Amino acid sequence: MIYNLPNLCDHKNMNEKKIDFDKILDQIRVFAPATVANMICGFDILGFAVDYPGDEVNMYRVAEPGVRIRSIQGDDGRLPLDADKNTVSACVKMLLKHLGIEKELGVEIELIKHMPIGSGLGSSSASTVAGLFAINTLLGNPLSKEELLPFCVEGERLACGHGHADNVAPALMGGITLVRGYEPLDVIALPVPEELYAGVVFPKVDVPTRDARQLIKEKVLLKEAVTQWGNIAGLVAGLYRKDYDLISRSMQDVLIEPTRAILIPEFYAMKQIALDAGALSFGISGSGPSVVAIARGQEIAEQAAARIQQHLTDCEIDSFKYVSAVNVGGPKVL
Amino acid sequence: MIYNLPNLCDHKNMNEKKIDFDKILDQIRVFAPATVANMICGFDILGFAVDYPGDEVNMYRVAEPGVRIRSIQGDDGRLPLDADKNTVSACVKMLLKHLGIEKELGVEIELIKHMPIGSGLGSSSASTVAGLFAINTLLGNPLSKEELLPFCVEGERLACGHGHADNVAPALMGGITLVRGYEPLDVIALPVPEELYAGVVFPKVDVPTRDARQLIKEKVLLKEAVTQWGNIAGLVAGLYRKDYDLISRSMQDVLIEPTRAILIPEFYAMKQIALDAGALSFGISGSGPSVVAIARGQEIAEQAAARIQQHLTDCEIDSFKYVSAVNVGGPKVL
Repeated sequence: MIYNLPNLCDHKNMNEKKIDFDKILDQIRVFAPATVANMICGFDILGFAVDYPGDEVNMYRVAEPGVRIRSIQGDDGRLPLDADKNTVSACVKMLLKHLGIEKELGVEIELIKHMPIGSGLGSSSASTVAGLFAINTLLGNPLSKEELLPFCVEGERLACGHGHADNVAPALMGGITLVRGYEPLDVIALPVPEELYAGVVFPKVDVPTRDARQLIKEKVLLKEAVTQWGNIAGLVAGLYRKDYDLISRSMQDVLIEPTRAILIPEFYAMKQIALDAGALSFGISGSGPSVVAIARGQEIAEQAAARIQQHLTDCEIDSFKYVSAVNVGGPKVL
Repeated sequence: MIYNLPNLCDHKNMNEKKIDFDKILDQIRVFAPATVANMICGFDILGFAVDYPGDEVNMYRVAEPGVRIRSIQGDDGRLPLDADKNTVSACVKMLLKHLGIEKELGVEIELIKHMPIGSGLGSSSASTVAGLFAINTLLGNPLSKEELLPFCVEGERLACGHGHADNVAPALMGGITLVRGYEPLDVIALPVPEELYAGVVFPKVDVPTRDARQLIKEKVLLKEAVTQWGNIAGLVAGLYRKDYDLISRSMQDVLIEPTRAILIPEFYAMKQIALDAGALSFGISGSGPSVVAIARGQEIAEQAAARIQQHLTDCEIDSFKYVSAVNVGGPKVL
């Protein structure tokens, strides 16, 4: 599916997407899922959503026009309440402007974060997707999910400085997504083998996305790039074939992991534990520090994650653990 | 499918693969197809076979033990008749040694080349595959195709100095193949959308594989590698979905083509002609100088190839033209 990224705030669609103010809902509550970007080998192009954790947006229609943040929970006070600076409200404003109703409609937002910021689980993407899905649903779905995606990408640009789609695409579309390219934005939904589970562990150490990106070298060996794209092609084929052995052989990252693993305590010990527990693969979720054991079946994912967490506890590192199937629906109204 | 590449000449399989000398055929004639390695975006990992052209091996069982080349046609005298130096006979000897019967069996080979050497169409691979498929069939198929593949890769190493599988794998297996990796050799058959046709044009200029490889830089920009592997993943998904638009968008090479195109006269003019004729994509076949227009349907492939050839004629460059569907059977007994 190709997405156009025009000037998102222009009014050209105002008449096409006529909003019936009588039908706007008074309130809505939306959950959007966390995501595991890269899916081990597919740096910047692959990602998948998980059922758990995720962020929630509670949105209210109010009389006074404008977009405001009412409250934020679960962010330890790290996110701005200023509606122009907060990514969620900024994206909602952008959408209202695009629809030409930003001066008429008033909405207030409660943001409830159920996952840590800077965890490598697409925390900002989940919030952005929840906010945009919420306002679109509140308005009676003037835009399709496909039409919402460019706004989500813009939100990622506001939050992280990079308009990457490898978190927002799976958070919005659900499942496993491939971002084939950006010029134009071209997102493909890949099949989800139903026994695929993720055991995610977030060691409570701080690895800002920007730092994790800066570590990565601008140039790579062609030989290693060939190994990487052989694996990426193998993974895509494996997903279509539901061939868990092929998926396992393919989910290896020879390019990015060796650099980013340095920032994550006990990375290689955790990897060995996950593989010993029978995981298909193990690696960094997004830019880390969360790590993910990808497994065939819930039980192995549970075991791998539990053993990894125990190891971190033994090393006196606090952590969170989340075990989930690959999410197939994307955001949902609660 | 994972292939082991053990010491190919050891005798450990001698007893398992017992050859019944009474059942060995007296003569066999085998055709093996030309191949388009890389498939535009998949440098060193993707390739497909075409129905036409291809090489033929005519093999005779003779009384005197040993492997000999009886004659070679179509090589302009460029290939060695010495059975130890000719890749086809050297591979046949290797297989006989592996089976432990090299001192008992005598075979003589006629090699008939139907495509130019150094054309970028997997000329040496087609001959190697024809030879190995011929001897295996002559012997009553002691090895499966999967078991033959490592011998074909070894033949490629003898011929080109590199043990690449992106030509021999499709030549032997037919269809579109992915070489996921080499340690161990892991080859995946990808689906072949039935309307996929190739219009191949070989401009008669000399681009030795070794030179074409040496032009390529050891390091590449990660940004460009990401673009490339997005395309590779998109192509694999497109093949499974039979989505010709996605296949078309994905078959773009930002990394290798800009360098290798320099060696091919009129490359960008030919590319424009192919795309104007409605081809899904256009690029270099293997290391060139053959070029390929990949099209949906025979007619467009024919038109693209014919117009490209006409352009080369206008530029006073001789050429050969081959239009074919993707071959799905691999080598065949004639």
